[in-house]
Amino acid sequence: MHVQESPPATDSSLLAAIDLGSNSFHIIVSQLFAGELKTLDVLSEKVQLAAGMDEDDNLTEAAMTRGLECLSRFAQRVGELPRQSIRIVGTNALRQAHNRRQFIERVQALLGTPVEVIAGREEARLIYLGVAHTLADDAGRRLVVDIGGGSTEFIIGERFEPRVCESLHMGCVSYTDRFFADGRITAEAMEHARTAALRELLAIRRDYRRLGWHSCVGASGTVKAARQACVSLGLSSEMITAEALHRLRDFLIEQGHCDQIQIDGIKPERCAVLPAGIAILSALFESLGVEQMSFSEGALREGVLYDMAGRLRHEDVRERTINALAKRYHVDRKQANRVEATALIALAQVKDSWDLTSGVYHEMLSWAARSHEIGLAVSHSQFHKHSAYLLQHSDLPGFTQLEQQLLAFLVRSHRRKFPKDDYRQLPPALRRPYRCLCLLLRLSVILHRSRSKARLPAFTLKADGNRIELSFPAGWLAHHPLTRADLDQEANYLRNIDFKLKVS
Amino acid sequence: MHVQESPPATDSSLLAAIDLGSNSFHIIVSQLFAGELKTLDVLSEKVQLAAGMDEDDNLTEAAMTRGLECLSRFAQRVGELPRQSIRIVGTNALRQAHNRRQFIERVQALLGTPVEVIAGREEARLIYLGVAHTLADDAGRRLVVDIGGGSTEFIIGERFEPRVCESLHMGCVSYTDRFFADGRITAEAMEHARTAALRELLAIRRDYRRLGWHSCVGASGTVKAARQACVSLGLSSEMITAEALHRLRDFLIEQGHCDQIQIDGIKPERCAVLPAGIAILSALFESLGVEQMSFSEGALREGVLYDMAGRLRHEDVRERTINALAKRYHVDRKQANRVEATALIALAQVKDSWDLTSGVYHEMLSWAARSHEIGLAVSHSQFHKHSAYLLQHSDLPGFTQLEQQLLAFLVRSHRRKFPKDDYRQLPPALRRPYRCLCLLLRLSVILHRSRSKARLPAFTLKADGNRIELSFPAGWLAHHPLTRADLDQEANYLRNIDFKLKVS
Repeated sequence: MHVQESPPATDSSLLAAIDLGSNSFHIIVSQLFAGELKTLDVLSEKVQLAAGMDEDDNLTEAAMTRGLECLSRFAQRVGELPRQSIRIVGTNALRQAHNRRQFIERVQALLGTPVEVIAGREEARLIYLGVAHTLADDAGRRLVVDIGGGSTEFIIGERFEPRVCESLHMGCVSYTDRFFADGRITAEAMEHARTAALRELLAIRRDYRRLGWHSCVGASGTVKAARQACVSLGLSSEMITAEALHRLRDFLIEQGHCDQIQIDGIKPERCAVLPAGIAILSALFESLGVEQMSFSEGALREGVLYDMAGRLRHEDVRERTINALAKRYHVDRKQANRVEATALIALAQVKDSWDLTSGVYHEMLSWAARSHEIGLAVSHSQFHKHSAYLLQHSDLPGFTQLEQQLLAFLVRSHRRKFPKDDYRQLPPALRRPYRCLCLLLRLSVILHRSRSKARLPAFTLKADGNRIELSFPAGWLAHHPLTRADLDQEANYLRNIDFKLKVS
Repeated sequence: MHVQESPPATDSSLLAAIDLGSNSFHIIVSQLFAGELKTLDVLSEKVQLAAGMDEDDNLTEAAMTRGLECLSRFAQRVGELPRQSIRIVGTNALRQAHNRRQFIERVQALLGTPVEVIAGREEARLIYLGVAHTLADDAGRRLVVDIGGGSTEFIIGERFEPRVCESLHMGCVSYTDRFFADGRITAEAMEHARTAALRELLAIRRDYRRLGWHSCVGASGTVKAARQACVSLGLSSEMITAEALHRLRDFLIEQGHCDQIQIDGIKPERCAVLPAGIAILSALFESLGVEQMSFSEGALREGVLYDMAGRLRHEDVRERTINALAKRYHVDRKQANRVEATALIALAQVKDSWDLTSGVYHEMLSWAARSHEIGLAVSHSQFHKHSAYLLQHSDLPGFTQLEQQLLAFLVRSHRRKFPKDDYRQLPPALRRPYRCLCLLLRLSVILHRSRSKARLPAFTLKADGNRIELSFPAGWLAHHPLTRADLDQEANYLRNIDFKLKVS
């Protein structure tokens, strides 16, 4: 059903992932070989995007410049790769920044690849995927924690399956700003930061403790530095223990200021955000009752790579997500399948003239068709708006926030008046193709409005710019006056957005 | 649990319902006696609110004046009744009118009772209730149809239980405007109107036919007039048959103009909207395969009365609705119950000083507490907004649109910043009390943030204007530093809306 238009991955495909984190940017380049990834190149730079936000939550010009300079260096590593082999994801700092589009457009101009801003839970899912691939494939349940610059992710999973994912609004950069802005480390500041983190943790404490885990693993800079500090200061060996963490906290307070911290193997720029990171780490040890934590080199960027590799092998988690959504909201599956099939037949006929040949359009149209009626579970009245609301705001594993917005747009506009405001919210380059996709979904919905299982006749759809011609076998329309009337009304709707629909 | 503050209904309570329909206004006054209603007085006037809308969907001054003049006549019939014994409901014309608040305020000033605008499905549920009470209590499944001025309701139910309710956007007044505006009755106009109705019916045709029914009953003016016409013209006897309806259609077309219609027992003003009504009736016979339809005197207004009588007997359908909603979205019931109990204890302590003694506030706070976490089913991020969206837009049997808005407001504002825009959307007279209720819900949520089953200590809440004092037993706060920190932050939030919270 799902034709993949991009060239199939060969056994020696190169893949690259770039993570625009709130604290650091990372790039990883790997070779996909027999389903496994072999890392070829890794690079990280401290950009501190989160620290470069003004009071109105806009990225400052200085922060954007820092980011772009870093990416121009990364660009050399990915220059040769085809576009579909690179993924760039943005996390908390870009989720928060009001002017993110400005930065995203500049990144895209620089690297030629779109930036995907992902939601907190999706970030957590990908982190788990990255960490799980670094661990032995045992059956025990694990808690994976990733303290980032602006958010901290918590995942409980088994093997390669995350079971619960959460993302809390606390990170080593944002907490440094709030509690250690002047660089001083006092017992009081440490306790304030810990209390704030403990309060955030209340949201997940009970549920996570109830589920439980056999081992606890941490990822990313803060945990890596904490382990390094424990080892260098002789507080513990491989693992971070609760006891060692307590003593590390006291050690930091004794130093009195970030500039005073000197620990073997930890760079000065990490020291600047270490007290905040240790406050968060210590709070989560206490709140969740963690006794000891190991460190994994796996992280978001590895997760993004394994997710890409999965898609190339047609194990797209987004498929599962849409099916689960349709089931949860009791979608009439037969009707959804009919609408999907007809929409895809329509797409096949016009994709060349409308420049919709990329496999992405095929997938998005298919997912929109399968989910366009979920809003009926809320209310029949204005259900297209409810469907769109759910698609936009639900945690949809595998989908980026932009993909959710595009899907919501298709579904929002599948009946009634064309929503011009929502249309203008789309990135300019995607407006035209998604308007065309929406017309295909609308036509398919009209043709199946009777919800009948009777087969549609073969129809011909031709598109030429803003002109569409839909023809049926002779006599068919005359025998289906309701469809005829609906198509006439559709022609009126389309006239409002300067499209001309001719039916014969 | 649910203290009813209004005086208990005695066996001889008088109840009145006023239906502000799109075509006519109706009033019914009844005596509630041993659980049964005895009708004392009935009055209807053709106001044609729907016909009095301008192109921008605003009620014209002329239409509002017609409505208010009619209501000033109705006022004489209800002058003696206590406020809680009267309910005024508005349907499609008021759902559509952008300037409805203006009209509603004038009605409230005239009659001293708030107007409740109800959603289409709720209208359908109440109509079924009204019709069911006029029929024998047999076990067969029935289809009940009510063709109104602006919408038509379809309900399949058994005994007093509606099973499916739908409301479609077609009515005898709006269709007269669209298809018979000049009064002429042609075969072509009749066919256009029928086709439009057939298209609307596609939305429910399959599901309704699949469910099926043993008997079909129609309510309200159009069906009453159709039966009268069939009888007067000798086309059928008690029932409207498909055959008689067909001949009635031909008869109307033969007359050629509304002014020419003369049928015994049908008033001229009904004749003006009869062709449109017959087009809709004929379409639904065809689409749903109805062979014959009987007429019931029961209608929306009777349904409203029986619904009131049920509430007085503590059989409030809204209770069931909130419980079903909580179940559907997998609310943590124990947590919801804890939050509810504490919020109600808080209300009991401040209701006198904050003038919240009406039982309505108690109910709304309880329902908000039990549903405030439904949005978690969509996403943890911003879940209070998702909860509010679902409360605002779902079909909630028993609730008016204003009640849904108020409930959504309470839930929307139960955490984080106080939503000033939503607040300004509330009717002015309700702003202050609902802001106070929201503060009570917020405090309760904070006190139960740990989701612990450990009992809270007895606390004392005092309110005096915009000052609130919350005190705990000595030492309790010191042992609960997270709650203390949350309450400190809450004091900051409340300062923004000029409330002062003191905690000790």
